[in-house]
Amino acid sequence: MVTRFPDIPQLSGFNAPLRVEADIYDLEVSQGEIPPQLDGTYYRIVCDRQFPSFVQGDIPFNADGMATSFRFKAGHVDYKSRYVRTPRFNAERAARRALFGAYRNPFTDDPSVTGMVRGVANTNLYWHAGKLLALKEDSPPIRIDPDTLETIGEYTYDGALTGQTFTAHPKLDPRTGEMVCFGFAAKGETTPDIVYYEMDRDGRVIHETWFQAPYPSMVHDFAVTQNFVVFPVIPLTSDMERLKTGQPHFGWDPDKDVFLGVLPRKGTGRQVRWYRGSNRFASHIMGAYDDGRYLHIDTPVAQSNYFPWFPDLSGAPYDPERAKGHLSRWTIDTAADPGAGGHGTDGGDDFTETRLTDCSGEFPRMDDRYETLPYHWGVLALNHVPDDERPGMGFRWLGAVDLDRRRTTTRWAGPDSCFYEPLFVPARPDAAEGEGYVMAIVGRYAEMRSDLLILDAQRLDAPPVATVKLPIRLPYGLHGNWLDASELAQRAD
Amino acid sequence: MVTRFPDIPQLSGFNAPLRVEADIYDLEVSQGEIPPQLDGTYYRIVCDRQFPSFVQGDIPFNADGMATSFRFKAGHVDYKSRYVRTPRFNAERAARRALFGAYRNPFTDDPSVTGMVRGVANTNLYWHAGKLLALKEDSPPIRIDPDTLETIGEYTYDGALTGQTFTAHPKLDPRTGEMVCFGFAAKGETTPDIVYYEMDRDGRVIHETWFQAPYPSMVHDFAVTQNFVVFPVIPLTSDMERLKTGQPHFGWDPDKDVFLGVLPRKGTGRQVRWYRGSNRFASHIMGAYDDGRYLHIDTPVAQSNYFPWFPDLSGAPYDPERAKGHLSRWTIDTAADPGAGGHGTDGGDDFTETRLTDCSGEFPRMDDRYETLPYHWGVLALNHVPDDERPGMGFRWLGAVDLDRRRTTTRWAGPDSCFYEPLFVPARPDAAEGEGYVMAIVGRYAEMRSDLLILDAQRLDAPPVATVKLPIRLPYGLHGNWLDASELAQRAD
Repeated sequence: MVTRFPDIPQLSGFNAPLRVEADIYDLEVSQGEIPPQLDGTYYRIVCDRQFPSFVQGDIPFNADGMATSFRFKAGHVDYKSRYVRTPRFNAERAARRALFGAYRNPFTDDPSVTGMVRGVANTNLYWHAGKLLALKEDSPPIRIDPDTLETIGEYTYDGALTGQTFTAHPKLDPRTGEMVCFGFAAKGETTPDIVYYEMDRDGRVIHETWFQAPYPSMVHDFAVTQNFVVFPVIPLTSDMERLKTGQPHFGWDPDKDVFLGVLPRKGTGRQVRWYRGSNRFASHIMGAYDDGRYLHIDTPVAQSNYFPWFPDLSGAPYDPERAKGHLSRWTIDTAADPGAGGHGTDGGDDFTETRLTDCSGEFPRMDDRYETLPYHWGVLALNHVPDDERPGMGFRWLGAVDLDRRRTTTRWAGPDSCFYEPLFVPARPDAAEGEGYVMAIVGRYAEMRSDLLILDAQRLDAPPVATVKLPIRLPYGLHGNWLDASELAQRAD
Repeated sequence: MVTRFPDIPQLSGFNAPLRVEADIYDLEVSQGEIPPQLDGTYYRIVCDRQFPSFVQGDIPFNADGMATSFRFKAGHVDYKSRYVRTPRFNAERAARRALFGAYRNPFTDDPSVTGMVRGVANTNLYWHAGKLLALKEDSPPIRIDPDTLETIGEYTYDGALTGQTFTAHPKLDPRTGEMVCFGFAAKGETTPDIVYYEMDRDGRVIHETWFQAPYPSMVHDFAVTQNFVVFPVIPLTSDMERLKTGQPHFGWDPDKDVFLGVLPRKGTGRQVRWYRGSNRFASHIMGAYDDGRYLHIDTPVAQSNYFPWFPDLSGAPYDPERAKGHLSRWTIDTAADPGAGGHGTDGGDDFTETRLTDCSGEFPRMDDRYETLPYHWGVLALNHVPDDERPGMGFRWLGAVDLDRRRTTTRWAGPDSCFYEPLFVPARPDAAEGEGYVMAIVGRYAEMRSDLLILDAQRLDAPPVATVKLPIRLPYGLHGNWLDASELAQRAD
């Protein structure tokens, strides 16, 4: 059996699997200069299938994770990419073919892998307490060597993780060094169980509690402030019966409300209070903070499901207009009664929503030094900018949002080009909020290669500070993070 | 100082430096099946500059060698590429910039590298006596690990190499396992001195002799038969005074004759006899054999210089028509007097020339099991096929030549596509001559990637046996060779 990917648009041309484990020393800088004080690494994960799927309609979220790194030092940057050796990856490599079937549907797997962890570690590369973790929300973390990107193995905090799953979006409390994290479907696929942990700055699990969501759904990201932790339950639902009949893991339920589960930081599951809102879509959190009473959560909000590959359970076709997300602020008055019974039943909004920009987009990021704290600046990838019809693919722009003035500065990717998730990197450790660089991968479709742009975060529309020219295209990528060299020096054994 | 290549066509798009050290497991096979009995490795070297040159008009032959391998086993093939760590490569990597100047002109170098070996090991990957050698004709071999492609270091046969240079085109005598090889400019750049060695099957130097060519020139390849060894001296001349004034290393002298220096196998320099012919160009040898008296050498012959970057010393412009080479047979009657004084002076041809095909091309190869022996089949890359105007780039066709019937079977590369040097691989160890596969890299310019075609050597125009689809483009490549797994198992420590 040879490796042969189907000849379909989503797996052809720029979107074809790359499958290259690469080292490129001293990447070409085709324009500008890399700020010489940047001393650290941009870790980023991409989705790159090792072997063709044997199921119809396979989705990028089901592709193997490839860890990548851009290591900056003294005005130079080196690139590296290595597949994450998940148990699944290793089993398929040994078989020289796919053994795992559809996204998060174990009923579609080859019998030889029944019971194996199905994670592909393709969603985030996250550093805490001296360890670099490749994350996928359906499975435990995989620890990666931060220098070589080689896989060290599954990492369960010395067995302290009691849930079966672990979010791809932990949050750091910069005041304490604590990592706040959770797992959903934590007792197995389609279970409504959520486990919430906190790890101290040394990576010890210092808090754990369990609770159940109003219904099982994708809890892809969450909000953490100094005093609260918020779990958004949006109507991208999961259901074991659907899995058994081979249907997609998640289905959009247009009849279900949104629930925001609020706990005090290090609270217990019994303390969760559900704030209810009408049917809508949200996924990634830009930032969140509270003043003791009012809790603000900034996230792109769409009228309906963003993901074309998860069906509408009503049978309605995918609607790209209603799927457009506008960065919005959800505000909860934690002093108000959230409704009877803990699950609001009055049908009204138990939280308010304010739109922060007229552009639509996703992949919001902030100056991560302000995670959990009041903040004023963010950046995201945009798929619609009013009165700007310049062509391109996918996310055709970036937008930097001044949250106080509610002003968005945009930058076009260029013809035949698309952005992926941007990243903020401070100019210096003591730089003011948002003073520094936005790094963003751009896919250059016509040239079949990618660039890494380094932009002035405060002048997103100015010529790039530097354009790092990659000689190859990078596959579809999800999340990444910056690690200062001083932090890498603290790597754990 | 950042790495930034000049924005010129020869370094842009498909021809841009790639600089990627890659591992790709189980390459996609987009069509057909890889013959399962193929158990071995196609080693091939490509030219891929690490850092931009600081001289004007830099040429591909001056780019760093990147060793590549296609490892075949049980119908699967894995790809690997690693730069050859020449002393020059290591010095430039440490400096993060080019230190060596123009092709084979040490007068253009940074003073910090004066006296260092200038080789870039970018011309061939050759196996003998359990060792894989990366070769460049201006410097000693560099030994490479055949599994990892990591550089072991300069290899001088335990100091037995007395010349400063070593050809990129050794020949194997299949009856004895001896490797026949040489160096030109062996006493230093532009010297007319040639050293001729033979190594036994265990890699010991068992023969060495020295002689001088009629004039210093590029002796890029040579011919070896059972009884003779032939050194073609063509008028691509070198001259120290030109180097000192920064001119290109080689210049085409339209007024000079060709000389073929013939020695008995393991003969001494005093025995060399020079056979003279009129001005013309030739470079690579497809094959050669003798019957004791008549010596036949098959090589593409052009009216004038093939290389556009080496100037005509008369000032004449490059003429692509006169540069077209047609595979031709030179025949020497070794029993005839080659002319008075050992260097024929009568101005007439001391050897005959017969054209073997109407197509023009270069990179001729044979079934290497017949090296030094009578043979009947060869293959080469073609840049002109009569009555075939299908478009493409560079070598738009391959041609398989039946030398007995003087018939050429051609294969078109496809639109926006070009071939590089083909390679013959026997179907089985005991297969008849030419029974097996032609492997050929094809550059797909519009797709910015390459294919490895596996063709039936006897039916070159039939659909490929298999098309191995590379997800990346491969840089400009020179020579390569097939190594059966049984030979790799004999690797030296």
